[in-house]
Amino acid sequence: MRLHDPDRRTFASDNYAGMLPEVLDALRDANGGHQISYGEDDYTARLGEVVRREFGERAEVYPVFNGTGANVVALTAMLPRWGAVVASGTAHIHTDEGGAPERVSGLKLLVVEAPHGKLTPEAVSTEAWGWGDEHRAQPLAVSITQSTELGTVYTPEEIRALTSFAHDHGMAVHLDGARIWNAAASLGLPLRAFTTDAGVDVVSLGGTKNGLLGAEAIVVIDPDRVDGIVYLRKLSMQLASKMRFASAQLLALFEDDLGVRTAARANAMAARLRSSLEGVPGLAFSHPTEANALFAELEPEAADRVRERYRFYDWDRAKHQVRWMCAFDTTEADVDDFARTVREALG
Amino acid sequence: MRLHDPDRRTFASDNYAGMLPEVLDALRDANGGHQISYGEDDYTARLGEVVRREFGERAEVYPVFNGTGANVVALTAMLPRWGAVVASGTAHIHTDEGGAPERVSGLKLLVVEAPHGKLTPEAVSTEAWGWGDEHRAQPLAVSITQSTELGTVYTPEEIRALTSFAHDHGMAVHLDGARIWNAAASLGLPLRAFTTDAGVDVVSLGGTKNGLLGAEAIVVIDPDRVDGIVYLRKLSMQLASKMRFASAQLLALFEDDLGVRTAARANAMAARLRSSLEGVPGLAFSHPTEANALFAELEPEAADRVRERYRFYDWDRAKHQVRWMCAFDTTEADVDDFARTVREALG
Amino acid sequence: MRLHDPDRRTFASDNYAGMLPEVLDALRDANGGHQISYGEDDYTARLGEVVRREFGERAEVYPVFNGTGANVVALTAMLPRWGAVVASGTAHIHTDEGGAPERVSGLKLLVVEAPHGKLTPEAVSTEAWGWGDEHRAQPLAVSITQSTELGTVYTPEEIRALTSFAHDHGMAVHLDGARIWNAAASLGLPLRAFTTDAGVDVVSLGGTKNGLLGAEAIVVIDPDRVDGIVYLRKLSMQLASKMRFASAQLLALFEDDLGVRTAARANAMAARLRSSLEGVPGLAFSHPTEANALFAELEPEAADRVRERYRFYDWDRAKHQVRWMCAFDTTEADVDDFARTVREALG
Amino acid sequence: MRLHDPDRRTFASDNYAGMLPEVLDALRDANGGHQISYGEDDYTARLGEVVRREFGERAEVYPVFNGTGANVVALTAMLPRWGAVVASGTAHIHTDEGGAPERVSGLKLLVVEAPHGKLTPEAVSTEAWGWGDEHRAQPLAVSITQSTELGTVYTPEEIRALTSFAHDHGMAVHLDGARIWNAAASLGLPLRAFTTDAGVDVVSLGGTKNGLLGAEAIVVIDPDRVDGIVYLRKLSMQLASKMRFASAQLLALFEDDLGVRTAARANAMAARLRSSLEGVPGLAFSHPTEANALFAELEPEAADRVRERYRFYDWDRAKHQVRWMCAFDTTEADVDDFARTVREALG
Repeated sequence: MRLHDPDRRTFASDNYAGMLPEVLDALRDANGGHQISYGEDDYTARLGEVVRREFGERAEVYPVFNGTGANVVALTAMLPRWGAVVASGTAHIHTDEGGAPERVSGLKLLVVEAPHGKLTPEAVSTEAWGWGDEHRAQPLAVSITQSTELGTVYTPEEIRALTSFAHDHGMAVHLDGARIWNAAASLGLPLRAFTTDAGVDVVSLGGTKNGLLGAEAIVVIDPDRVDGIVYLRKLSMQLASKMRFASAQLLALFEDDLGVRTAARANAMAARLRSSLEGVPGLAFSHPTEANALFAELEPEAADRVRERYRFYDWDRAKHQVRWMCAFDTTEADVDDFARTVREALG
Repeated sequence: MRLHDPDRRTFASDNYAGMLPEVLDALRDANGGHQISYGEDDYTARLGEVVRREFGERAEVYPVFNGTGANVVALTAMLPRWGAVVASGTAHIHTDEGGAPERVSGLKLLVVEAPHGKLTPEAVSTEAWGWGDEHRAQPLAVSITQSTELGTVYTPEEIRALTSFAHDHGMAVHLDGARIWNAAASLGLPLRAFTTDAGVDVVSLGGTKNGLLGAEAIVVIDPDRVDGIVYLRKLSMQLASKMRFASAQLLALFEDDLGVRTAARANAMAARLRSSLEGVPGLAFSHPTEANALFAELEPEAADRVRERYRFYDWDRAKHQVRWMCAFDTTEADVDDFARTVREALG
Repeated sequence: MRLHDPDRRTFASDNYAGMLPEVLDALRDANGGHQISYGEDDYTARLGEVVRREFGERAEVYPVFNGTGANVVALTAMLPRWGAVVASGTAHIHTDEGGAPERVSGLKLLVVEAPHGKLTPEAVSTEAWGWGDEHRAQPLAVSITQSTELGTVYTPEEIRALTSFAHDHGMAVHLDGARIWNAAASLGLPLRAFTTDAGVDVVSLGGTKNGLLGAEAIVVIDPDRVDGIVYLRKLSMQLASKMRFASAQLLALFEDDLGVRTAARANAMAARLRSSLEGVPGLAFSHPTEANALFAELEPEAADRVRERYRFYDWDRAKHQVRWMCAFDTTEADVDDFARTVREALG
Repeated sequence: MRLHDPDRRTFASDNYAGMLPEVLDALRDANGGHQISYGEDDYTARLGEVVRREFGERAEVYPVFNGTGANVVALTAMLPRWGAVVASGTAHIHTDEGGAPERVSGLKLLVVEAPHGKLTPEAVSTEAWGWGDEHRAQPLAVSITQSTELGTVYTPEEIRALTSFAHDHGMAVHLDGARIWNAAASLGLPLRAFTTDAGVDVVSLGGTKNGLLGAEAIVVIDPDRVDGIVYLRKLSMQLASKMRFASAQLLALFEDDLGVRTAARANAMAARLRSSLEGVPGLAFSHPTEANALFAELEPEAADRVRERYRFYDWDRAKHQVRWMCAFDTTEADVDDFARTVREALG
């Protein structure tokens, strides 16, 4: 019962793409018979093994439904009721989660400047103070996004500088990895190199934006940094009954480097688009293109002409800034046609 | 990459079963190409049409991840911050959601007696009072479960009596339909007969327990009874990005009466099990078996002997009460073997 | 600028009474000059000393604005986000706080039967189970009220039985002492005898109902049972800037046994009223009168005739049950006139 | 039982001062006899009349315990669960309430730049967008503080510009008037001139910082902008049982212009201090001194020398900025001695 055109693609979001064929296969394999619900199944057990192999022996994995769920449950488990999170003003938890951190868990966000979406110890320090003062929400966690919401990628050294600063000040570090695979592909490094080995405590491990039907997970690298996560996942409505299907999806990304390969493809398409359009008059790029997102500034009229053929989102209307995303299924032909469309629209 | 035995089944939970083959097909059909995320896709649009056909022209549908999400978002949308929900002491929202209604939305539950899991106007009236008194959480909604957590089924008339009482007292009515298909199959009536036509305002439309990979939906029958549901779904972390896959699953249940047929099968297996064991010495059934669940009382030692072969849960340890569930994939052979096992265990 | 008749009293509530003259004096003495705000003042320091003397060397005191604030902040400090409180169905936290525990702190209440308002280990045990099960809000605290909402008083032994049961099961014990002075007066025992010495962990120390303008405090007897209380008090909006005045009021109750003496007076007036009306045809008392409250059952028409002269509240309309309260300022003449009025109303 | 020196004053906070003598008198007058609790007393009724006279015929008043309570209950009543508040980064609700808006009510704050603590329509517009987008917390209220946390005062025209902008965009306007009397005294205008007449919808009416023992109130100027405030006050633990005493205090401030006169005195002392120290080498003032607060920048060593004699707070340690506050009871001699101390400390 197909209702749509399976050959039509846009540059709006990696969430517009569907499932990888390997993921559909994984769901089929995980189907049939009975498996214990709520995470005591064989697929979630195997996922635990894989996560320990990838993130270290102490690592624990908690599949959840979506990225907001992963972020909010993770941060809640990392913070007492009086805790606050230092984050970038472009952080997904601040701009795109409908206020879920505040509403579901009462978490206060302390927002700081982050050029190109990347926090620095200096930026964090502007809000990292006041411990022990009951009048101030206590800054006890830092949250970074990798790759960032602006399509940039932290180096392991940049992350290490942040985790050192945070730990020195009694703060834990969360990494929102909704596009963690794109970061790994961009850096040419295993996930571990810029998480466990860089001092990150808890990761929101993305999957949906990289070809899953819908599955993310919280990876706790340092269990001493969280408390009550099994309860919090449940009471935050993020506990899947048929968890085997979430775990099977996530496992697929770790099989034969699938997750890195598909992310690399998306990154490559973004790079191709950027190099194809770099220097075109009337068009400027706002940030380095290090993953699968481009941020372009062009006249609204030109953007609208492109939109007649391809859907995408405004990012900052005041700056005439739009976002173009590549997905695992973006093809070279898609990129070339899109680039041609943009050039034509710009006259 | 299969890790489990696809031919092994238990009587523990309908959540232990996997996906219907039709659901896997639906996922495959919905895959490929780009679809707008967060619900503007073609599958969610079609689901809206189907829901209007089934529940009435004013009906709206909001897919979510799981039953707790459906219940909590629905009730939150139905209630002001000072509202309270009258519910049975066996209601899933009270016993099995980790306190999500209270924690995520600050909802107060007012719990009343409900023999065999079914509320009555008299039971509701014991907590339905105190409107206008600022000291009392305001009882502004009633929540019932159909089929109930105890395997019973409300008649349309019983529901109508409750909705009339509720509406007369300014309360809205929510129906937790985690097993709504089993109720429809049991009653031999369309969903509408005991929801829309019986005065129910908002339904949590189940799917997962009836053969989906994982998808539920809030069906708002009377939009005047809810407020801000699109915001609440998002901020409650229940908004799927690739919603086409949730909607495609739900659509499958409505196609060729699939949902009713599979639920009827589960119900029939429960009835077969009951009739096979009715009257066996040392065994008593606690409630009528009107859907796919049986509640049996037997000595713990006997129960443990059954458990050597089949997994299931204690329901009320003090009463030596256990729960046996049939699923869409339970076979007659499964039932017969289980019944034989029980009889042997009882000596 | 007096707007009311200072000689008119009712039997509606101990909250209708004003301040003890000693309390007004204490406010005057604490006035003038500057004192550090938010609790670093000399009066709060002295209160700490007094509380250690009364409740034990480890005791800590945190003044707050009102009883609901004391209860909710105390219980929140005692519980993780996934914790639940076992309490009586007549507990103030359940019936009269507008759902504050659920709404402010996401606490789930597990309500059990409590004849005459008093919990027992058996009653608590009906909800004290399921630890480690993520689907169940974790019962990690018990809350009792002393004297109870029904005018009865726990003996130290009854409390000890509850705290032993609770501690044996990993639960902490909170005592709502909104009328703790009435209990002390009733038992003829120091506060410590039925709190610290009976194993209670945290007390809501009442004051307002016993002649203060408005001040209560959380007394933490066992600091190992709470976490973050200074932050929780602030973020729950219960931190007074000019705390010296709250502390000065509370100190007054400890001076020359004032609090016990005034509560004893209120209790004596309740006893006088009971003995004056005991056995009058058409009138029945529902509970023992062990503190300052009486619960009487009489025909609504008779109650209304009494109301022409004296204000009081219905308690359970279905049972024709009303509540009569005595306060620190109730006089023998008040009681005698009220009793006469009741007798006349009953014909 | 006096424990402190009633003649010792500092420049740390207007919360360090005690009660005005008129307030103690008001408490004494309101004492005695019984008054209905929770706001049905004669003093609260009179306060309602006074508030209607001052703020307009539709105005409603709800006494609460403290400023955080007033702000959070007011904003909660103004916003749906998905609403957000645009506020200055120096707003008390953001910096000094321990995260109460987020934690108690799930409110999201959207923080913008505000030179000298004053918002402008341009500043608000940077976060006032995205209505209808479920991913974004909906900016539906603006909160300003008058006088500001930085000791400046909005003109009525400045407020009018903000309320016009807000209302044009469907946002309500809250004014945190913790120091509203200082603003009135500074402007030489009645409260109404910069609240009701300037389009403000809801006011947190301060009292404690201006000589009360502890009482604030929510003044709802436009009742169409709030919902359920009586329930929200109760469930937010801000409902006083003996409300007569809160109302009596607040009434005192309106009597014979007491509130304006005392605030004018505090303002005058701040102006005297500023003019006495203006131009002293080594000292710079950060903001205009329009109310009772001064923000001074001086070397930490010099500040510490002043602190040997007078307590006050660092405001921004990185900038070597401190805050000096005058209260209703600050005397000319206090100011002159303090100024002398500062000059000596600066060498």
